[in-house]
Amino acid sequence: MRKLYDFELSGSCYKIRLLLNILDIPYEKRNVDFVHKEHKTPPFLALNPMGEIPVYEEDGLRLRDAQAILVYVAGKHDPVRTWWPAEASGQGRIMQWLSTGGNEIMSAAGARLVKLLKYDLDLKKLQDRADSTFKILDAHLSGRQWLELDHPTIADIACFPYTALAAEGDISLQPYPNVRAWIERIKQLPRFIPMPGI
Amino acid sequence: MRKLYDFELSGSCYKIRLLLNILDIPYEKRNVDFVHKEHKTPPFLALNPMGEIPVYEEDGLRLRDAQAILVYVAGKHDPVRTWWPAEASGQGRIMQWLSTGGNEIMSAAGARLVKLLKYDLDLKKLQDRADSTFKILDAHLSGRQWLELDHPTIADIACFPYTALAAEGDISLQPYPNVRAWIERIKQLPRFIPMPGI
Repeated sequence: MRKLYDFELSGSCYKIRLLLNILDIPYEKRNVDFVHKEHKTPPFLALNPMGEIPVYEEDGLRLRDAQAILVYVAGKHDPVRTWWPAEASGQGRIMQWLSTGGNEIMSAAGARLVKLLKYDLDLKKLQDRADSTFKILDAHLSGRQWLELDHPTIADIACFPYTALAAEGDISLQPYPNVRAWIERIKQLPRFIPMPGI
Repeated sequence: MRKLYDFELSGSCYKIRLLLNILDIPYEKRNVDFVHKEHKTPPFLALNPMGEIPVYEEDGLRLRDAQAILVYVAGKHDPVRTWWPAEASGQGRIMQWLSTGGNEIMSAAGARLVKLLKYDLDLKKLQDRADSTFKILDAHLSGRQWLELDHPTIADIACFPYTALAAEGDISLQPYPNVRAWIERIKQLPRFIPMPGI
């Protein structure tokens, strides 16, 4: 059986829920009480020593890191390989945005944690870094419908949630029309599901 | 022709040089004057708007991000697919460490920039985060020779440089014997090449 260690309000967990739903893969959700820091307790650290959600299990394989789980699920369960193609140049192109989704765009996630859960982080620095990233994203999306390969891939899924949730960290997407159009495009995908705030 | 936008003292660029050398792939190096911030100048930002090295070009493909380049080079040029296997579970397992190599372990790279180039960053915080990561790495390597799949992969290459350079950021690997043994094991790989500090 497939199991996702999940938290409804986590954009990182939502990446996995979204891909699994799009691919129509059944799975079981196990809620992690993120607000009360269950992800930092010994039982959870035994699942993922990094103390982060999501964690995903399937057929005896246990994976941490949202981007790693996207790579596995798309590689395993998308028979036509559009979400994560098999050939090297497609994987290299997409991988650039898996890195961006797990790094620079996580600044927007950090800003959101400050606003929603009062995390003690440098809000201004996080907002500025996220804004710089959205500017680059907007320029990249000029004349493009999707981040790479002219069709939706896990690159889009990796970068989507915390971009679409930017307002919850008091970061405006108003200056970035290409980013806003791309968000709307993702929301129109077949079998798209939302999360709170999106 | 293949071209690497490179800086000798960058552990991120070294990841690519190391893999290209192991796979015996000829390429051209173009030095980027990182110390004088050439990577933040308009001509370089036209190559990579993120303003980071390395950048890699091959056959009209241009890639940013060390981990993305590792995925491409290994997927393209390793005919037996040991460094980046084709199947989903292997890719998912390795991808976990590509994320770690591009995220948590980069704290050690940040600490090194403070010590070597006087970057204005929170040294103590970077050192603590790197140390926590090395502790996790050490536990993971207990009873293992390599990070995943019982043989060397790009997971090892992605995590190796800034771990091996930790002392340059005043971070000690003395408490982590499994990490130190793994570093020595990597140094014994056929066609291994060093970099300054390693």
